[in-house]
Amino acid sequence: MSNRPHPLTNHQIRLAARPVGLPTADNWTHTQEPVRELEDGEIVVKTLYISIDPAMRGWMNGGKSYIRPVEINEVMRAGGVGRVVESKSDKFKVGDIVSGSTGVQEYWIGAADNKYGAFYKIDPSFAPLPKYLNALGMPGMTAYFGLLDVGMPKAGETVVVSGAAGAVGQTVGQVAKQKGCRVVGIAGGKDKCDFVVNELGFDACIDYKNSSVKDGLKEHCPNGVDIYFDNVGGEILDTVLTRINMKARIIICGAISQYNNTTPIQGPSNYLSLLVNRARMEGIVVFDYAPRYHEAVKEMGSWMAQGQFHTREDIVQGIDNFPATLNMLFEGKNFGKLVLQIAAE
Amino acid sequence: MSNRPHPLTNHQIRLAARPVGLPTADNWTHTQEPVRELEDGEIVVKTLYISIDPAMRGWMNGGKSYIRPVEINEVMRAGGVGRVVESKSDKFKVGDIVSGSTGVQEYWIGAADNKYGAFYKIDPSFAPLPKYLNALGMPGMTAYFGLLDVGMPKAGETVVVSGAAGAVGQTVGQVAKQKGCRVVGIAGGKDKCDFVVNELGFDACIDYKNSSVKDGLKEHCPNGVDIYFDNVGGEILDTVLTRINMKARIIICGAISQYNNTTPIQGPSNYLSLLVNRARMEGIVVFDYAPRYHEAVKEMGSWMAQGQFHTREDIVQGIDNFPATLNMLFEGKNFGKLVLQIAAE
Repeated sequence: MSNRPHPLTNHQIRLAARPVGLPTADNWTHTQEPVRELEDGEIVVKTLYISIDPAMRGWMNGGKSYIRPVEINEVMRAGGVGRVVESKSDKFKVGDIVSGSTGVQEYWIGAADNKYGAFYKIDPSFAPLPKYLNALGMPGMTAYFGLLDVGMPKAGETVVVSGAAGAVGQTVGQVAKQKGCRVVGIAGGKDKCDFVVNELGFDACIDYKNSSVKDGLKEHCPNGVDIYFDNVGGEILDTVLTRINMKARIIICGAISQYNNTTPIQGPSNYLSLLVNRARMEGIVVFDYAPRYHEAVKEMGSWMAQGQFHTREDIVQGIDNFPATLNMLFEGKNFGKLVLQIAAE
Repeated sequence: MSNRPHPLTNHQIRLAARPVGLPTADNWTHTQEPVRELEDGEIVVKTLYISIDPAMRGWMNGGKSYIRPVEINEVMRAGGVGRVVESKSDKFKVGDIVSGSTGVQEYWIGAADNKYGAFYKIDPSFAPLPKYLNALGMPGMTAYFGLLDVGMPKAGETVVVSGAAGAVGQTVGQVAKQKGCRVVGIAGGKDKCDFVVNELGFDACIDYKNSSVKDGLKEHCPNGVDIYFDNVGGEILDTVLTRINMKARIIICGAISQYNNTTPIQGPSNYLSLLVNRARMEGIVVFDYAPRYHEAVKEMGSWMAQGQFHTREDIVQGIDNFPATLNMLFEGKNFGKLVLQIAAE
């Protein structure tokens, strides 16, 4: 028997068609359905915030990747933070705040111990909830382990990061500063550049929309580039390749400039710089580090507690705005980690 | 006072102009000059064989690389094997057979202890001299250290190598077989493919000129590609990128398909496969391993002595044929390590 005061209606956004180029309204359908009764071991999570990520564009494509594609008519995949509102599981009780793969919908229902995208409890008193989708969530884990495990920064080295004001970039730069590196960001527009320098403590930032990245690298990386953390691909990757040092490490995290291409992806024409400089280009997928997320949360959490680590979120309201909000990423319109608020806390 | 029976005349090939695209006759001048008298500490080496390498094309370009360019009107750089014919050095005596940077000329003269391209003695009784420009020389060292140090092969893994019948490819495949790997070559034409399978013991070879590399990889690498040793770049690199395994290693040794481009180099459009597969692409320059060459000579030499390691050289005669011989490389016309014989032994 249900203890619901009234039937819950679940609004959802589903993938209607695979996009060609930039997603449009035709790629999405808005659906609603009642939330079914719980079975033993299941929970209902009311979605509060979802993370809007460049990776979503890849999930919309068919074909093999590091994760299965979202199927046509499936609820769009999204990481989120929510509140447990019903529970027939010993694992969670009503009122728990959890993080996991909610999808782009108002309510998630399923087994509490589901393997993929399993929910885990988070502490709302430790940090505001949107930060659990930023430095304390997947983007933060990506930045932390990509930089430290693949980049292996040494104090005094020069680290360059693109998408510097974005979710991953913010954390890459601040972790690199904590490790004693010189940090140069690349971001679009003066506001973002001022933010990463003045509020996050980067040593410099190159505004790729209003200045030459090549000249900026010459000016701000007088000793060359030891580590490049790439979130954008395309011409910026190619330009950085001309400035790398011997034994440089390039972390391939994403290529947002290329995700909506209708022509083949632009490969790095200057990749032979890897040969000349005995350098390395290596990919990272955050899920590989799941057993070690706690290390990152602990270290970055302690920096936050000491006021030495800051993050910025760009929060948009309302599930119906999901399609437009996603496209903000590809137009560089977000300023900080992009989060969609689905319901009031 | 000279003890020469008559003055030595040195025929040389010099870089006349930097090439655009494939080198032509206009890029070279043939010069001759007398060999000057020796000063203390100097030697004269009579060049017997020189190594014809894809890297030569890069040395002809201006601009920064892993080694300084050959200057206009400078004798073209080449590694070679020769005989010491005059000596005012304690380091070498007349009759010694040596290997070093002879250049494309009949006689090299200079300080016996010159730092760059220093000569070292080799043992003509251990192996025919051209092999000192192949597996026991720079191509062999490149293959050995690139595969083992960057590729880190484990028994049972699948190794793919392009330019399989070439100088580096021959050794890569045979070292990988010795380490217990499955080895698949990529080469141009049935003869080369038959050679690497039947004479060198590769498990399979894909004839890129007469069949689909994509289909060949599917057929011959049923468990995917763990290591790709790339000598060619271009479309073959892009195709292999679609077949790599998780944590694959790609060794960037060269990109012969791109060296004569008059348009920008074709970057690997599928480089995001590195991300999906958490894979690595890394460059190698052989000079870094100079302190360890002796390890490679010892191990490969012992395999040769046991009849478990074979090499093939393609020997062309005569210094005047240098320009045409170099271009054979770019047209895929050589069959085995390309060597130019400058004088009879």
